[in-house]
Formats: sequence, C-alpha cells, structure tokens
Amino acid sequence: MKIGMLTSGGDCQGLNSALRGVAKTLYNELGSTVTIYGIRDGYRGLIEADYRQMNPQDFSDILTLGGTILGTSRQPFKEMRKITEDSEETKLEKMLRTVDHEGFDCLVILGGNGTHKTAHLLSQHGVNVVTLPKTIDNDLWGTETTFGFQSAINIASTVIDSIHSTAFSHSRVFIVEVMGHKAGWLTLYAGIASGADIIVIPEIPYSAEKIAQAIEKRERNGKRFSILAVAEGAISQEEAAMSKKAFKAAREQMPYPSISYRIADELKALTGQEIRVTIPGHYQRGGAPCPADRLLTTRFGVAAAQLIRQKKFGYMVALQSNHIVPVPLSEVAGKLKTVPPDGEIVRAARALGLSMGD
Amino acid sequence: MKIGMLTSGGDCQGLNSALRGVAKTLYNELGSTVTIYGIRDGYRGLIEADYRQMNPQDFSDILTLGGTILGTSRQPFKEMRKITEDSEETKLEKMLRTVDHEGFDCLVILGGNGTHKTAHLLSQHGVNVVTLPKTIDNDLWGTETTFGFQSAINIASTVIDSIHSTAFSHSRVFIVEVMGHKAGWLTLYAGIASGADIIVIPEIPYSAEKIAQAIEKRERNGKRFSILAVAEGAISQEEAAMSKKAFKAAREQMPYPSISYRIADELKALTGQEIRVTIPGHYQRGGAPCPADRLLTTRFGVAAAQLIRQKKFGYMVALQSNHIVPVPLSEVAGKLKTVPPDGEIVRAARALGLSMGD
Amino acid sequence: MKIGMLTSGGDCQGLNSALRGVAKTLYNELGSTVTIYGIRDGYRGLIEADYRQMNPQDFSDILTLGGTILGTSRQPFKEMRKITEDSEETKLEKMLRTVDHEGFDCLVILGGNGTHKTAHLLSQHGVNVVTLPKTIDNDLWGTETTFGFQSAINIASTVIDSIHSTAFSHSRVFIVEVMGHKAGWLTLYAGIASGADIIVIPEIPYSAEKIAQAIEKRERNGKRFSILAVAEGAISQEEAAMSKKAFKAAREQMPYPSISYRIADELKALTGQEIRVTIPGHYQRGGAPCPADRLLTTRFGVAAAQLIRQKKFGYMVALQSNHIVPVPLSEVAGKLKTVPPDGEIVRAARALGLSMGD
Amino acid sequence: MKIGMLTSGGDCQGLNSALRGVAKTLYNELGSTVTIYGIRDGYRGLIEADYRQMNPQDFSDILTLGGTILGTSRQPFKEMRKITEDSEETKLEKMLRTVDHEGFDCLVILGGNGTHKTAHLLSQHGVNVVTLPKTIDNDLWGTETTFGFQSAINIASTVIDSIHSTAFSHSRVFIVEVMGHKAGWLTLYAGIASGADIIVIPEIPYSAEKIAQAIEKRERNGKRFSILAVAEGAISQEEAAMSKKAFKAAREQMPYPSISYRIADELKALTGQEIRVTIPGHYQRGGAPCPADRLLTTRFGVAAAQLIRQKKFGYMVALQSNHIVPVPLSEVAGKLKTVPPDGEIVRAARALGLSMGD
Repeated sequence: MKIGMLTSGGDCQGLNSALRGVAKTLYNELGSTVTIYGIRDGYRGLIEADYRQMNPQDFSDILTLGGTILGTSRQPFKEMRKITEDSEETKLEKMLRTVDHEGFDCLVILGGNGTHKTAHLLSQHGVNVVTLPKTIDNDLWGTETTFGFQSAINIASTVIDSIHSTAFSHSRVFIVEVMGHKAGWLTLYAGIASGADIIVIPEIPYSAEKIAQAIEKRERNGKRFSILAVAEGAISQEEAAMSKKAFKAAREQMPYPSISYRIADELKALTGQEIRVTIPGHYQRGGAPCPADRLLTTRFGVAAAQLIRQKKFGYMVALQSNHIVPVPLSEVAGKLKTVPPDGEIVRAARALGLSMGD
Repeated sequence: MKIGMLTSGGDCQGLNSALRGVAKTLYNELGSTVTIYGIRDGYRGLIEADYRQMNPQDFSDILTLGGTILGTSRQPFKEMRKITEDSEETKLEKMLRTVDHEGFDCLVILGGNGTHKTAHLLSQHGVNVVTLPKTIDNDLWGTETTFGFQSAINIASTVIDSIHSTAFSHSRVFIVEVMGHKAGWLTLYAGIASGADIIVIPEIPYSAEKIAQAIEKRERNGKRFSILAVAEGAISQEEAAMSKKAFKAAREQMPYPSISYRIADELKALTGQEIRVTIPGHYQRGGAPCPADRLLTTRFGVAAAQLIRQKKFGYMVALQSNHIVPVPLSEVAGKLKTVPPDGEIVRAARALGLSMGD
Repeated sequence: MKIGMLTSGGDCQGLNSALRGVAKTLYNELGSTVTIYGIRDGYRGLIEADYRQMNPQDFSDILTLGGTILGTSRQPFKEMRKITEDSEETKLEKMLRTVDHEGFDCLVILGGNGTHKTAHLLSQHGVNVVTLPKTIDNDLWGTETTFGFQSAINIASTVIDSIHSTAFSHSRVFIVEVMGHKAGWLTLYAGIASGADIIVIPEIPYSAEKIAQAIEKRERNGKRFSILAVAEGAISQEEAAMSKKAFKAAREQMPYPSISYRIADELKALTGQEIRVTIPGHYQRGGAPCPADRLLTTRFGVAAAQLIRQKKFGYMVALQSNHIVPVPLSEVAGKLKTVPPDGEIVRAARALGLSMGD
Repeated sequence: MKIGMLTSGGDCQGLNSALRGVAKTLYNELGSTVTIYGIRDGYRGLIEADYRQMNPQDFSDILTLGGTILGTSRQPFKEMRKITEDSEETKLEKMLRTVDHEGFDCLVILGGNGTHKTAHLLSQHGVNVVTLPKTIDNDLWGTETTFGFQSAINIASTVIDSIHSTAFSHSRVFIVEVMGHKAGWLTLYAGIASGADIIVIPEIPYSAEKIAQAIEKRERNGKRFSILAVAEGAISQEEAAMSKKAFKAAREQMPYPSISYRIADELKALTGQEIRVTIPGHYQRGGAPCPADRLLTTRFGVAAAQLIRQKKFGYMVALQSNHIVPVPLSEVAGKLKTVPPDGEIVRAARALGLSMGD
C-alpha cells in the first residue's frame, strides 16, 4: 500500500504530530506492507511530483515539533483548473498524473478551508483521499475543533495576560491584534480566556463610538486600563454596510499595515488617549503544539489510519460531541464555520459585562 | 439575594476563574440586589459559620490566579451525619443551621466527587445548591470534562516532554508518576500527549513482566530509552485479584512512599537496569489555569449564575457534546467516571504501538 | 524611620519583587521601627503628595506579579524645574515639599534613565535617596545588568523561536520588532539566543542592500527562510548621516507605525519577496519576572535596605562583576550604556555568521 | 584540521547549543579546512573509537533542543588508569590511541567535574583539549556560571511557584526536592527566586528541630503554609558530625528513596502535620535551554572555537566578571565550587527572613 502525505495552506501547530499519528498507526498495524511518501510543500509537490519515501525514524521525535516536516505552500483552489504556464495541463491534471504515476493508493491531506476544496476536487476525480482538519482559525465546517486552534489560543492569551500588568501599571488602553480574517473564534476564545475587556470579531461589526463608550465606562468605574482583543479581520459597521466592491476599494486605500492601527487612531480621536498596539502575528501559529493539540492530532491521525485500512475514502476526520467521526468531504468543502453572533460563547462574554464593540 | 460560595476538596487550577465567572455575571446582571459571601475553607467554613462578605473587587485580577481565594479543606462525606465532638449536632445540622441563620438563598459549591456527595445531601435537605465540576482527575460523572483537568495535563505533559531529552541522552528508563488514585484520565491523556512509551492506569492492572517486555522490545528496535507514565493509583494484576481487605493490608506494608518506586524495583529486578523516578506531585494541581480551563470555568460560571437567576437549583453545570448543560445532582453524586479500558483513547494508544502495561 | 517607595517610567518585570526585597528586609531587620509608604504612580505621587502607608501583607504574594503595585507614570526630567500650571512651584519644589512634610527619611526609587536623572536631582537637593536599576533596555550606566532585561529577552526569544517553525514551513522572510529605542541590548541578546539570522540595532545603522544580500546568501546556501530581529530604534545608514533635525523631520514624515514596516517595504523592493512583520510590543515588558530577575531584584532589594540601615544615601545598587555594589548617582545620571559595536557579543554574532545588517 | 567533540557526564540544557556555537564558528571562519567528528556517548565513544563525521546541517535547528545529539555516558575518572576487561590497555590508553589513530588535532569536551578531571588527564598526556563548563549544579571551579544552571533554576522555580497556590489553599507544608548532591547553588537560587520559606543545602547541615521551629513561627505569624526547598544532598547536623564511613553506612540503611521523605517524617514527628513531597527529578535537566543558557553557550562556543584557531589548548572557557576567559585545566580539575555559607546570597536569604534550616 502506497500512501502519500501532504500538508497544505498556512502552517500551524500540530501538523507534525498529526503526520506522526497517521504514520505510527499505519506502520504499527500494517508493518512492511505500507510505504509512506512525503509530498513536499503541499499541493505544489503533488503538482510537480516532488516527494520522497519516508521511513519510521522520520516520524520519531516530531510530536512537539512546530511547523511541518513536509513544508507547505498556498495553491489557490481557483487556479486548479487553469492551464499552467509550463505545459498544456491544468494543475489538477498534473496532480492526477502524479497520483497515477506513483500509484498512490491514498493521499492523506492536512489543511484548512482552501485545502479541503482541492481535496474534494481530487476525490471527485477518483483519488482516494483522507483529510485532517488543520487551522488556528477553527473555521472549518464539520468539526467542533480543528487542530492548532487551542495552541493559538494559548499564545494569544499569554500575550494578553502579559499586557494586563503593563496596562494596569500605566493606566493605558491596549489593542492586541489576534489572527483570523474571516472567523473570530480565536479572538473570542483568547479574549475571554485572558480577561480582555472589549472583543472585536469579524462576525460582529464594530462601532468605534461604542468601543470608546466601553472604555469610558470602565474609567468611570475606576478601572485603570482597557484591553481590546481585535481580530485581524475586524470590520466597522460602516464597512459592513458597503458592497463587497466598495469595501475592497476602501481597504486598498487604508493607510495602515493592519486594522488595529486604524482602530487605535479612531479611538484616539474619540477618547484623546494614546492607544498601544501589539501584533503578535505569526507567533500565534508557530512553535510546539500544546498537549491538547497533540492529543487531538494523535486521535485524528489514528482515525485517519483506520479509515485507510477500511478503504473508506473521501472523508475528513472530525471531532463531534467529543467523538472522532468521519465526515464526507462534500459536506465540508467550501463551507465556512463562523462564530454565531448570538451563540453561547458570545452571550457568556456579554453576561460577564464584556463589550463586543457593537 | 444572598449567595454563599465555597470551594471544597483538593484544590486545582481554575477555582478562582470559576468563582469570578459566577460573581461577575451575578454582579453584572443583578447589580446591587445580590450579595455574595465567601465561605472559608470549604464545608469547614459552612460548619463553623466562617465567611465574609465579598465585593466586586475581590473577583478582579484572579482569572489566572492558582489555588482558591476562599481556601479549601477536606470534609469526608461519611462524617457529615456523625455527631461532632464539640456539640450534639452533626456536621450536616451545623451546615443547615448556618444556611438558615444567614439566610443564604443559594450555595455555589465547587468541588469533585466527595464534595458532590455532600452537596447532594444539602440539596436533599432543602438547601438551594448549584455546583461546578472541579478536579484534575476528570473522574466526575455527568460531564465530559472537569476544570483543572487540562491544566494538569499540560503540566504532566511538560514534565514528560523534558524527560525525553535526558532519557535519550543517557539511554535510560524513566518513570513519571502522574496524579490520579482511582481514575487514569490524567495519566492517559498526558501520556499520549507527551509520547510516553508505556502508560499504566488504575483501570488496567499492570504486569511488571509485560512492562519489562515492552522495554526490551523497544531496545531491540534500537530505541535508546523508555518512558513510563504511571498513575499514582496503579495496581498490579496480582493486586487486582485480591480482596479489598487483603489489598489494603498489602499496601499498608508496602515499603515505598509511592507506587512508582515499587515498579522501579520490580523492573530493575527484571531488566537489570536502573530506573529513574520523577514525582511531580502537587506541582500538577498548582499554578495558573491554562486558557482552556479559564474559558471552561468562565462558561461554567456564567451558566451557574443563570441557573441561580432562574431559581433552578439542585444542578451541576456540565459539559456535554461541547454544550454547557445542567445535570441533576442525583445523577452525579456518588458515581465515578473512570477510563473505559476498551474506549477510543485506549485503543488509539494501542494502535500507535504504546504498551498499556498489560 | 519613614521610607517612601516609588516606581517610575515604563514598567517592567521585577518591580514588585524588588519592592518586596526592600520591604521584607527592612521589616525583618528593623521591625516596627520602620514605616513604609507607597507613593502612587511614580514622581506624580510625590509631586501631588499621593501615597499610602503599606504593611507587610502588601508585600506578600507579589514576587511573581508583573507590573507594579504602586503604579507608575512618565514625568519628563526637563519639566522638573518648570513652574507648574496649578501653582507657583516647580515639580521639584513640590516633591521636596512632600518629602519634608511627611518627613521621609529616605526615598527608594526604582527606575531607568530618566528616573535616575530626577533621583539625582532630588539627591542634590538634600533628599536621601537609594535607587534600583530597572529597564528591559539594559541601557543604564553603572550596572552590568538591569532588572527586567532577562525577562524581556526570554519573551522576545520565545517569539522568535516560534517564528522559526512557521518560517521554515513556508520559506519566508520574517521581521520581529524588539523593544529598544536607543540601545540594542535586548535585540542583540534575544536575537542570538533565538537564532535570528540578521540583527539590526540602533548602534549599528543598517543598509537595506546589505540585509537583502544576507537574505539572498542564505537562499543560495539552501536555507528556506530568514529571520530578522530588528530593534524599534533601528536607523538606516542614510539616516545616521543626517543631522539630528533632518532625521527628526524625516521620521515625522515616515508613513509607517513603526520601523519594521518600512524595512519590510525596503526589502520587498530589493528581493521581490513578501516580508511578514511581528510586533510583540508591550508583551515584552509585561507578565511575571523570570527567576533570574526575581533573584536579581531580591539581591538588589536586600542591598538597598542595607544601604538604608547604614544611612548610605545617594547610591544606586548595581551588579558589577557578579557582585552587588553601590554606585554614586552622580556616576549614573544622564549616561546611556549602549552596545559597543565591536564588543565581544557583536563579534560573537559575526563569528557565527550572523549579519548585523551593515 | 580535525576536531573531535564529545559531551560527557549527566546531560543538561544547552549541550546542543554549545556544540552548535563551536561548530558554526569553525565552519564559518575555517570553511572546508575543518572537519568535525561527533564522538558518541562521551568518553565511551573515545575509548571504543565510536564516532562519525558531522556536517553543517547536523548543527542546524539544535539551538533549542534539549539533551545532546552526541549522547553521553558516565565514565568514572578512577577507572581511567585501570586495565580494562577486554584488553591489556587502560581506558586512558585506548582514548589516546583513538586520538592518535584518527589524528584529532583537538578534542572539544563538554562536561562537569568528573569530565574535567579526565580532560585534564588527556591534556597532561599531550592531547589538545578545549573544554566547556556544563552542569546544572554550577559547582565547577573557575567559572561564575556553568551552562544548564539557569535553565534548571527556571524549572525548579516554576515547580515551587506552582506549589505556592496549592499550599496556600490547603494550609500545608510542602517539600520540593531540588537536584544537587554536593553543592546547593541550584536549591539556593531557585529557592530565593520562587519564595521558598526554608532552604536546605548540603553546605549548611540542617536541624529538623530548627526547621520545625521555622514552620511553627510562620504559623504563629498567620501564614497558612510553608514551603521547603531541599537539595537532594541535604545532610543533618548529626550526619555532618559523623565520619565519612559512618555517614555512608548510615545512608545505606536509610529506608527512603531520597532525603526529602526522611525530612518529611522527621517534621511530621515534630509538628504533627502531614508533609507533602514533590520530586521533580530529571525534569530539572531536560528540555530546551533557556535563552540565557543559549546565549551563554553560544558565547562559550565561539570562544572555544577561537582558542582552537589560536592553537591555545589545555583551557576551559569560563565566565568571570561577565567576560569570557580561558582558564587552565590545571586550575579547574578536581576542585568543587560550593556555596559559601556566609556569602552574599545566603546572607540575603537570611536578611529576608528565610530559614536556612540551621
């Protein structure tokens, strides 16, 4: 049995431990009847037939290793059916040719939303595929939790924790910009977990006036400081009312490298205070996976290996009601799981007295 | 509305953030119509009417604080109905008198198994009770996860992680003793998350011979070291076959301060190797709660406050299928949730090639 | 004996443990003959006579607490001799009046460069002063190490560590902006400690071309990524050649919220690659002091208390050749300790093959 | 130029970053004229001629890796001149033969006290040797600080930090046993850094009565708990008065796996309280080096490489007065650096009101 493995899209914590989970289970249960190939840099390696044979030692000592030993790259789904520059084939055709040429019995694909669209496409074209849900954004449909999410929460929370002491000492307002372009899970969870006072997520467009009021209310209540957790995909209520095109044009004109600097200026104008900005950036997706992600990826990896043994292809392994279950790729691909603005967690934040910036 | 709060039994991470979640929600939603009393050292404070009025500031800046600001103590359930030395009352009667005298409209009780038996007893005697599930052991019935559990996993995993490098460098066998007298959740989860090679839990009695064989198999496979994660409640297959009385007698004779030293001696006799023992002990239950526990306790706290507002008493807040739900105390009290020896997680460990020591 | 304590300037890790060290030693050795007053928000509290009597419990449980329990503020030295708006006195006169009115036998002052200028001024006007050297920048003259420095190194290093895995996975160039406006100690130490490839500090003006060449050299050597540690006070070689005035004017026009974004644009123009920027910001000065800073602040605190007992005033406690020594304020005030561009540490970086961006 | 490298004795944090520092500097400055050999498992590999040629990639990505990529072993100095079982040579002769046969121009040796005695012996027999001072115990003569020491302090301090919250919550007495058989540096530094109340080190024999008094004094002062940091080499005042032989005999009879359990029993008898014991054990020497150790090892590594280039052999690189200096092996070998019982740090501990158990 020949298995090809690849990791695609933005990297996150737990990719290596997930690869290890799949590989250790396959080697342990199938022994020398299985051969695993590591495809380099995600779909790029599949397109360009760039892969190497792995052996059991390759998967030793990588449980806590950050990043991915296979490398990754972004290969936009919309380019998959376009003719490539260097040949008359599309990227899709090249990938199918690689699978066919090497005779891969199955591809194990780790990735997020974009990755799953392409995985589904491969599946529709007859490739045996099993996928694992990876993203710090937790915005993948069909699973309660993706891996990387908890590790990123831990990092973002630690940053906000530390800001507390300096905010208190100086009586200041701070913005911590948390990753998440389309979904606010990470900002919301990290914000609550670290005691942020105001949480701004893409799903709930913000009003600078409302945020300024929340800051001023805290001051009236004798609080020396306010901390905002702002998702990098935050949008204002004005922007939310725009057409997609107008929004895109407005953002291209935005004279800030990221949204937090704009919000800082808006709040400065409204409150007269200096607002400090912290951008932990890719720090949130690097480094060792947390133990929860190591356990989750191991469970996902074992489950993926078992789907392979059962020749049950076309599924993503997922966590539902605390159980690992297979979910058909057709139910996952192309769907985004965002924060319900009136869900339990947002209501809990409001019950505590936090502002959602609206 | 007068609310009494207490934390009982062994302390763990997240007690303060849970208290904060309840209090902040009550203060935010009920304002000055609610008064919260902090009962000192668990049921002891209720028995001895030792409590003080809290105010909102008491719950500020405690989100990440380890331990419990209220103190805790162990008050065995079996003594609750006994006449106390200093009076003609039982402990139960004293507690009922305190509730009655102060006019507590509700008690918020944070604790584990023993605590819940007493909470249920109070509820049966007419006290309005809402409880929160606390224990690093995760052995409380009715909830998928207790708070403290993930924080303890993180610590135990970190210890085992670190042992890896020294084990590798020296080609040695190491035992890390993980907390858990009756349930092996913590050992199992931390063991898998940190790549332990052999995991010994109370639910699966161990055979020293089988462990020695697992160590020797690893050596034959060229591995330089083996790491055992052993629950402090580990028992041998011989002991598992004993009567309760014989077991208790045997353990009282055991010339070791804890089980890992005995296993180390057993393995030394079988393999001829020195075995190093690490006992992280109470380190596992101290310090700041991890972000996952801070979020979980906040959600539990908000939910408990809402039960109080709805005058829905006699419930524990619990996590089921990723939702916060109320569970009647009668369904929780006196039941222990242990690791199913053939459940998904144990099967995942075996699929990876780990030994469960049996 | 009446002691006033204050913390001034930017906060950092270790302020509370330093206060604790002074206070515990005074209480332990002088007992009830000493009274300690906590002056709020640095020199502001001294100017406005805003302070409160402390007691031993105030200094319990603060060893690991971030920030400062006394609060802090920035009070520019150059304003000290100016007449204040609300009276005919200068700030200096107001401070002297507070000291005189309360009868403080000694002020214990924790701060960095600006703080020490004012402390020296107070000392010159007859106030008994003992100071402790605080700053994450390590740029205070007269001491090998300031407290806060090692804690900040740890945080900046951890950020850069984590960026490594994502940089490797994606084959990218990353900039991590490290605190330090005038001195590059933090960037240099954290950069070496975390394996940054290119280190840019204020003391060694950078050439964007040279940095681009260093990146390209790494690519030619088969390295998938490059990580730059850039001090927030980094300046280009062009800027270094400017007059102070021209430089200031140029910077006011700079359309970036901080220097790293400009360097990213410069490098993008030269290399054609996207450069990712991470700004950990105040995260670097918040949170618990590391054990090394807790030990150092405790040693400083004990030494300061002993100077007070010996009535040896006008000194800063300092670390020299691993010993705690008193240094006259006149030797400290107004001097900046910057990184020697040809010192051992810079030479070590170059010996390893790192680029200093020049 | 042929360089052999080995790591010997107990492992600790920073071995890999030190190896990297030496290797990167040699490769960077000498290019292809240098060949580095990795000798396996310390002197064992030198005795048995077990080594392999390294290349630059071997030293990539190991800056934060715990343990040693070369492996280590303990080879007692007193056996070096004994005839080995399998030949007519001594171990020393075998090592000299390996050096001669391979033509090593220099050996780079990383180790602690025992290692340095053997390194000196090799040097006396004409081998070109440069050494680096490694040990979490910090007990090596000639250097203010060894690497591994600060990393171990961080871990031991973190354990004691965490015990604080549980100790407070439960009103209990805790012992944390810290590594260090002959020297108390680690216990002393970690104990002060983490706010231990009683510190017991080998250099200051303890009195159980005095410790019990210190505990009781704390209780009288209203403290709910006491935490003891006890070095694993702690000895009682009775034992200190014994002859070496009598002491050894007494210890062989000691029915405890380590000293903390005995002290716990002694204190239980004196105070009537249960004492909880935590043994972090090898956790203290495993895992990633802290940033301070990474910087120190890098500086040591660069300095060692420069001694090699200068053909200055027979030296250990050391830290003195914050400078890296070479120290002749003859001044280092066979000497132990222990804590001066009346030195600054012990006096600081006493000034704070801590008990040294005497």
